[in-house]
Amino acid sequence: MTALTAAHHLASHDDRGGEAAAGRAEPVEFRVAPEHYRHWRLSADGPVATLTMDVAEQGGIVPGYELKLNSYDLGVDIELHDAVQRLRFEHPEVRVVVLTSDKDKVFCAGANIKMLAASAHEWKVNFCKFTNETRIAMEDATAHSGQIYLAALNGTASGGGYELALACERIMLVDDRSSVVSLPELPLLGVLPGTGGLTRVTDKRRVRRDLADYFATRAEGVGGRRAVQWRLVDEVVPRPVFGQVVRERALALAASCPRAAVAASQAGIALTPLGKARGADEISYRWVTARLDRAAGTAELTVRGPDAGAPADVAGLHALGAEFWPLAMTRELDDLILDLRTNEPELGTWVLRTAGDPHRVLGYDQLLLDNRGDWLANEIVHYCKRTLKRLDVTSRSLIALIEPGSCFAGSLLELALAADRSFMLSGVADAAAGDGGRPGEPVPAAIVVGAANLGALPMGNGLSRLASRFYGDETGLAAAAGTAGRPLDAAQAAALGLVTFAPDDIDWADEVRLALEERSSFSPDALTGLEANYRFTGPETMETKIFGRLTAWQNWIFNRPNASGPAGALRRYGTGQRAEFDRKRV
Amino acid sequence: MTALTAAHHLASHDDRGGEAAAGRAEPVEFRVAPEHYRHWRLSADGPVATLTMDVAEQGGIVPGYELKLNSYDLGVDIELHDAVQRLRFEHPEVRVVVLTSDKDKVFCAGANIKMLAASAHEWKVNFCKFTNETRIAMEDATAHSGQIYLAALNGTASGGGYELALACERIMLVDDRSSVVSLPELPLLGVLPGTGGLTRVTDKRRVRRDLADYFATRAEGVGGRRAVQWRLVDEVVPRPVFGQVVRERALALAASCPRAAVAASQAGIALTPLGKARGADEISYRWVTARLDRAAGTAELTVRGPDAGAPADVAGLHALGAEFWPLAMTRELDDLILDLRTNEPELGTWVLRTAGDPHRVLGYDQLLLDNRGDWLANEIVHYCKRTLKRLDVTSRSLIALIEPGSCFAGSLLELALAADRSFMLSGVADAAAGDGGRPGEPVPAAIVVGAANLGALPMGNGLSRLASRFYGDETGLAAAAGTAGRPLDAAQAAALGLVTFAPDDIDWADEVRLALEERSSFSPDALTGLEANYRFTGPETMETKIFGRLTAWQNWIFNRPNASGPAGALRRYGTGQRAEFDRKRV
Repeated sequence: MTALTAAHHLASHDDRGGEAAAGRAEPVEFRVAPEHYRHWRLSADGPVATLTMDVAEQGGIVPGYELKLNSYDLGVDIELHDAVQRLRFEHPEVRVVVLTSDKDKVFCAGANIKMLAASAHEWKVNFCKFTNETRIAMEDATAHSGQIYLAALNGTASGGGYELALACERIMLVDDRSSVVSLPELPLLGVLPGTGGLTRVTDKRRVRRDLADYFATRAEGVGGRRAVQWRLVDEVVPRPVFGQVVRERALALAASCPRAAVAASQAGIALTPLGKARGADEISYRWVTARLDRAAGTAELTVRGPDAGAPADVAGLHALGAEFWPLAMTRELDDLILDLRTNEPELGTWVLRTAGDPHRVLGYDQLLLDNRGDWLANEIVHYCKRTLKRLDVTSRSLIALIEPGSCFAGSLLELALAADRSFMLSGVADAAAGDGGRPGEPVPAAIVVGAANLGALPMGNGLSRLASRFYGDETGLAAAAGTAGRPLDAAQAAALGLVTFAPDDIDWADEVRLALEERSSFSPDALTGLEANYRFTGPETMETKIFGRLTAWQNWIFNRPNASGPAGALRRYGTGQRAEFDRKRV
Repeated sequence: MTALTAAHHLASHDDRGGEAAAGRAEPVEFRVAPEHYRHWRLSADGPVATLTMDVAEQGGIVPGYELKLNSYDLGVDIELHDAVQRLRFEHPEVRVVVLTSDKDKVFCAGANIKMLAASAHEWKVNFCKFTNETRIAMEDATAHSGQIYLAALNGTASGGGYELALACERIMLVDDRSSVVSLPELPLLGVLPGTGGLTRVTDKRRVRRDLADYFATRAEGVGGRRAVQWRLVDEVVPRPVFGQVVRERALALAASCPRAAVAASQAGIALTPLGKARGADEISYRWVTARLDRAAGTAELTVRGPDAGAPADVAGLHALGAEFWPLAMTRELDDLILDLRTNEPELGTWVLRTAGDPHRVLGYDQLLLDNRGDWLANEIVHYCKRTLKRLDVTSRSLIALIEPGSCFAGSLLELALAADRSFMLSGVADAAAGDGGRPGEPVPAAIVVGAANLGALPMGNGLSRLASRFYGDETGLAAAAGTAGRPLDAAQAAALGLVTFAPDDIDWADEVRLALEERSSFSPDALTGLEANYRFTGPETMETKIFGRLTAWQNWIFNRPNASGPAGALRRYGTGQRAEFDRKRV
């Protein structure tokens, strides 16, 4: 079996974009850089950066559709994701990011419909997940780095185009009697806005729910004064002065930012190209490796700890830049998650391992947490947080294996806490037991709770993974937190509830093998639903509502004949034929 | 087109239960009474009632399956729903309800699998919704009436059987080396537990998420001491003393209830049979009527206000019993909602009207709210709350029409606040405009915010409908609340944001007609998703998580070939053939 490539995703039920099946032969790559952008232009001018969307019509990541009117596909969003990320690391002086378009009278038409109609279900869902993460990353930049996104809608923003604006802190719309904002998915396509639109309209922008309902059924959108009255946008500005007023607002926002003075004096660090080797059965980086077992349906990820101690101070961190272990490792893990999600949908279980010295990991954590006032240390912690959150919403079973020689400590312990289950080897492995132990190193595995586990890396629900784990069990949480800094062996970890099972070397290999085989035998869909529910115990936030509630409904709708059947609205759009609906309400 | 009956629901993709299609000719009825129960026995003995499940194998609501091992279908749950309801009104002296089974070594095997496998998608989803509501009603009885549910698991409780136990305040399991609790849906059927199991296991019982994950993949379940350690049950008791210990616990719980003394002295009221006429195009009760327009795909509901003023005091309320207008009207509305949901899935839009004197409605509200300490007044308010919550989770578009002669005041204003949109006629209707105005009564429509709108009837998200409407807009909320008791005309209501649109008599008929026609033209699935998202702004609760998150994932899974396709797990169960899965993770 070969690696699934983007081309396969378009082959499934395509009855109109036949050419789409010609496809790309290569796996999708998320590593890009501004000098190679095809769809965006990033320019920074002191505290104000401008991110200009100018999608290349012929630049689709898969053949078979044209990206007209600044409509987007995964390739366009990969560049946006890169730009948002680079702004934080390479341009700490930027306080305001103006998001606008270079097309005449069009801001962005949203996700390309022909692409959606021709895509396989898993491709659509994965695409929506990534675009959602990028929009949440924009809000994260505003909240935690003081990089405020300002949507300058120089023309109509429809569907995903308006949802992109909704991820910004402020929305300005040109007032020219034709430009509007709209969510036309329901009336035109029979699906929902897929990138958080419904949630953000009511919960973020506080549009009244009945107006929001009307708005989402009105294909022609809302513009002008009404858009302001209903809180759909913050301001409308006549076209002749639009550019000038946007500039004024951006400068005023930048000046009002409490971090303006701090950041202006800082130089960014370069996010240098990520070294990566992708073979048929392995994806490897410097610190992170994944072994792909297609027969078993698993990917075995190993994250290696640092090979030296942390720098003595924050100056040392800055000097290392992208080579600094937590940043280098996180970038690799982030890229790997995105790669596996997109290119390897049949590898349904990810086995998570670490290797290295737990105390070194804790040393790096400490340097970062002691210097949260430093912009770069702060960025790295938040990036680590975002990458772990990506893991939380990944539709793969996550099984952590904690073996001798591993370094599940502090920030890396989060991998085990993010897992659906963890197994920790009690004692040392018998040499015959295989991968588990390192010969000549008869030191039992230990995990260490660290400061990084106590709130610095919250999940989307606002709780630490430890607090989610012990949701409603304050005693258990306090006991686990109370061990901070102390290595815990398997028996201790199991007694504290920090690992699921702690088999000894006699049972280890069989127990792990059976767990993995069993997991692979279950319905992949039911596992996705199970995990999406269990991973988010307790409170909900706008973010968990987007991934857990809105996405689940959208996935259901995507899968229904009324949208995706031959006569469904998504497939019929643009054909001149009306969709035919089964009118039964479910 | 004839009314859809239960038989149709089984006809769609049934390749094993051919006989199921023979079907029932009548619409499903929710009106039952204990003397006609086929599956349950309700007995009350002072403060302790016992609700015994003893499902009649041949008593399926639709032919084609046998209800073995206390498995259930909609008919079984209709009786449970009735019992939970009657316990509150007819047995206020009951403080503890012991839920147990009459089958040997089996508590309940959950929803009948052959029934699920043979059911059409909309039937499954509607069935799960109703069962969820009944389980939430049990929790509501515990929280608000001090009727504590105690699950006495005299044998294995699997799937929906364990979920039924999870809705109880306390779970006791017999300890006999064979009885277990289990959620085998994922491993055996490739679907999720559909009645809140995943949410309650972690969020209510605080089972650690990794243990919960293991538990939900283990078809053979967990019993004995481990079930207690993991918090899956509260107590295990050896079989020889099980009955005795259950009785002891029940009496102790009853004695500990702060309402024990109050309630013992009260006599319940009889929930007398509900008069109902069901024709081809109309369902009518004394206070509530629905006109079914199959061509338009709408049901036009009218709730009539009281025909006399409220009794002077709570004694008058007790004397009227089931004839007391708020109770009589709510019972009818509740039955109508259930009937339309189940029997009329193609009527996708419900038009909500009221007729009567707003001040009389407010008078009844006041009597109830002034006497919340009285058990019956309290029950009626909570029943009104539950019925309105049923409306909130109904997958139909709700459009309120506020016309002259209507009585959208206080508790009845909630109908308009529950609607996705509301239209209020500005001024009086032209006689030619049709249904809208009453000739000879040229009084413009008015709505009145009342005390009942300010928190007594919360939605599932814990907020009043008014607070949900003005979520994040404290000023708007205060302004609306500040008008309490004052009739508001259309202009005032629109300015305050209490109605969506306020057309005058010239535009009224066209605007309403167009809105209804347009609504009927949209994808029913997309509307369901839209409404499920918009109706629940802001915070989430266990209840909204069950309806919004868990249900959405379950619906998606139900609809996927891996579950419901010819080779899917749900269809293959019991055939001896293994399911075949598309292994791609979505």
